[in-house]
Amino acid sequence: MDTHSVEILFQIFVMFTAAKVLDAAGHKAHVPTVISEILAGILVGPSLLNLVQIQEWTLALAQLGAIVLLFSVGMSQKLTDLLAVGGTAMLVAVLGVVAPFFLGWGLMVLLHHNQIESVFLGAAMVATSVGITASLLNELGALRTVVASVILAAAVIDDVLGIIVLALASTLALGVGYVEVVSIAVLAVGFTLFIVLLGHRLAPVMNRYVAGEPAFALAMILCLGLSLAAAKARIAAIIGAFLAGLFFSEEELSGGVKDKVHALHEFLVPFFFVTMGMQMNLGVLGQGSILLLAALVTFLAIVGKLIGCGLGAYRLGREQALQVGVGMVPRGEVGLIVASIGLGLSAISDEVYAVVIIMVLITTLAAPPALRLLLSRHPAPLRESS
Amino acid sequence: MDTHSVEILFQIFVMFTAAKVLDAAGHKAHVPTVISEILAGILVGPSLLNLVQIQEWTLALAQLGAIVLLFSVGMSQKLTDLLAVGGTAMLVAVLGVVAPFFLGWGLMVLLHHNQIESVFLGAAMVATSVGITASLLNELGALRTVVASVILAAAVIDDVLGIIVLALASTLALGVGYVEVVSIAVLAVGFTLFIVLLGHRLAPVMNRYVAGEPAFALAMILCLGLSLAAAKARIAAIIGAFLAGLFFSEEELSGGVKDKVHALHEFLVPFFFVTMGMQMNLGVLGQGSILLLAALVTFLAIVGKLIGCGLGAYRLGREQALQVGVGMVPRGEVGLIVASIGLGLSAISDEVYAVVIIMVLITTLAAPPALRLLLSRHPAPLRESS
Repeated sequence: MDTHSVEILFQIFVMFTAAKVLDAAGHKAHVPTVISEILAGILVGPSLLNLVQIQEWTLALAQLGAIVLLFSVGMSQKLTDLLAVGGTAMLVAVLGVVAPFFLGWGLMVLLHHNQIESVFLGAAMVATSVGITASLLNELGALRTVVASVILAAAVIDDVLGIIVLALASTLALGVGYVEVVSIAVLAVGFTLFIVLLGHRLAPVMNRYVAGEPAFALAMILCLGLSLAAAKARIAAIIGAFLAGLFFSEEELSGGVKDKVHALHEFLVPFFFVTMGMQMNLGVLGQGSILLLAALVTFLAIVGKLIGCGLGAYRLGREQALQVGVGMVPRGEVGLIVASIGLGLSAISDEVYAVVIIMVLITTLAAPPALRLLLSRHPAPLRESS
Repeated sequence: MDTHSVEILFQIFVMFTAAKVLDAAGHKAHVPTVISEILAGILVGPSLLNLVQIQEWTLALAQLGAIVLLFSVGMSQKLTDLLAVGGTAMLVAVLGVVAPFFLGWGLMVLLHHNQIESVFLGAAMVATSVGITASLLNELGALRTVVASVILAAAVIDDVLGIIVLALASTLALGVGYVEVVSIAVLAVGFTLFIVLLGHRLAPVMNRYVAGEPAFALAMILCLGLSLAAAKARIAAIIGAFLAGLFFSEEELSGGVKDKVHALHEFLVPFFFVTMGMQMNLGVLGQGSILLLAALVTFLAIVGKLIGCGLGAYRLGREQALQVGVGMVPRGEVGLIVASIGLGLSAISDEVYAVVIIMVLITTLAAPPALRLLLSRHPAPLRESS
């Protein structure tokens, strides 16, 4: 064993153990696994204990974790149910993108930041982290409710919209042509529609031909393949994984495919959340002016989703509209990706980057307990098909 | 998604798909999964299609695959059975190390290579690849035979011996003191004995306290922890994983731990074998003199294990002794590690490095069909406890 392999093994051990130990400790206090594992990442990451650092293999493992997470979430959705809420979800997604974008952009313009930086901040406030919300709904046993269907469908749609906004922002920063932006937007929408419509027809056919151990292999090939296709189409890879999961959601598969995916989930997903925690730099919390801007941006990020998504879901009634709004609050990997691309293009400053990270951290940590509370006071009704 | 993440996802997709497709294709011709997946690695790796290249994250994923492989192999062994064959296994291991080492070293000295290079080649011929042999025995349904117990126990012991020989060779090359060599040797032997004796007593106690989803988490923490401890003690990490598996081998665990480990096995192990295939450079096959030396070294590597291990297992009868000898022929990761360390220390030339790779390739590819043939003609008797 060379010392480098030993170091990688050490970090894998630390990440996995911290995640599972904090999760076990938090379980009795009803802390969601998502939060325990992000906190584990903050604890062992560069900000505090510095036992582990972000490296290429960390990101590869985290990416696999995110893909497996969305794959198993997709499996637990029934495609027909998502299509049934499609109208409401579309309204929730569009209003939930428009409101926070203009609130964030407006704040920055008011504070005399330049146009490009303002657009990037708005773009980073757009996309709900479907991974965190889905995992939380799963833990709360609320995946088969109308509220969950609307949230997940809207989160998928707003990721696509978020990518389009990101493309627009990058275009502004780079000065590239509008042709590329339009082509990305068309690809993103077209890809999603194509897979949704194809999966709807193909699932029963595929289920008839796969069985036994090859069924799991084929499922994972499809999952990785669609993730790759989504990434190549400039949509987030996890959207492809979610859509692949939908392929297998309608019918029970032989060969224990769902159990096996769940086992992968238990091992790989912690690496995703721990890595998200590791990426949060607590050092910036010492600066007063950044804290003030972060507080304003976070407030607007929450209000934007509550108003935008709440209005979009108003036809479900006030309680459920509020639940949808709160469920759409957590920002995660897409917000971080937007921020890091902005930083890479020198479109945003280190300070604004830190502000985005704090916003992501707080929306991620605050939404789960709020949603838990709302759901315990007004349990969301199950979908009719369940 | 940045383009780098997309590239990683592409390579993961290609590695996994190639492994599973070639395995499915080879399955009807009774080609072992091991060989199909190594061939898949050669096919998509730098030697042929060059779709994937060895990178840090590839090695990290391959390492996880090797650890999960040995963990599940350990789980399928009964510790008491391994201890029961301990005497024979020790004899098989020691003679199986001594014979190929001196044959390889002697050949190189005869051919006027320098002392250090000769010792390194001998060292690279020592360690049986327990991963390949275990996987093959698993596929042949022969894991619960006396022959399998002897092979696996001997392979574990000869990995420890191989590390000691590697330490000796490195000492020669570096000129470091004998104190370090002795301390590594003592650590390696002591660690193995400690875990074996501890696991023997602890397993029933642990099984009483873990249940449900945390049982799997605890099992994986123990697996990664012992792998890390083994690596820190300068033994191969996979030996720790194998020993951790033994902890859970005596009794059935609740929470479906074994099924979950098997699911991880199906997803992660292909990355180990594909990476081994990727590391094989076919380009050197064009040089005549290297091919001749490689043929000689490979011949001695096979004869050394057949004679050494066959003699060690002679008390089992001629058929089973031959099966043990053939089962010990495949060299793998340890041989490659020895060669790459030798190359790194400038102790061996590029040509000798290529020779080791060819030897590893041929012993790995030739042994499985031979063992399959022997086992089909003379089925190995089951262990009494099974």
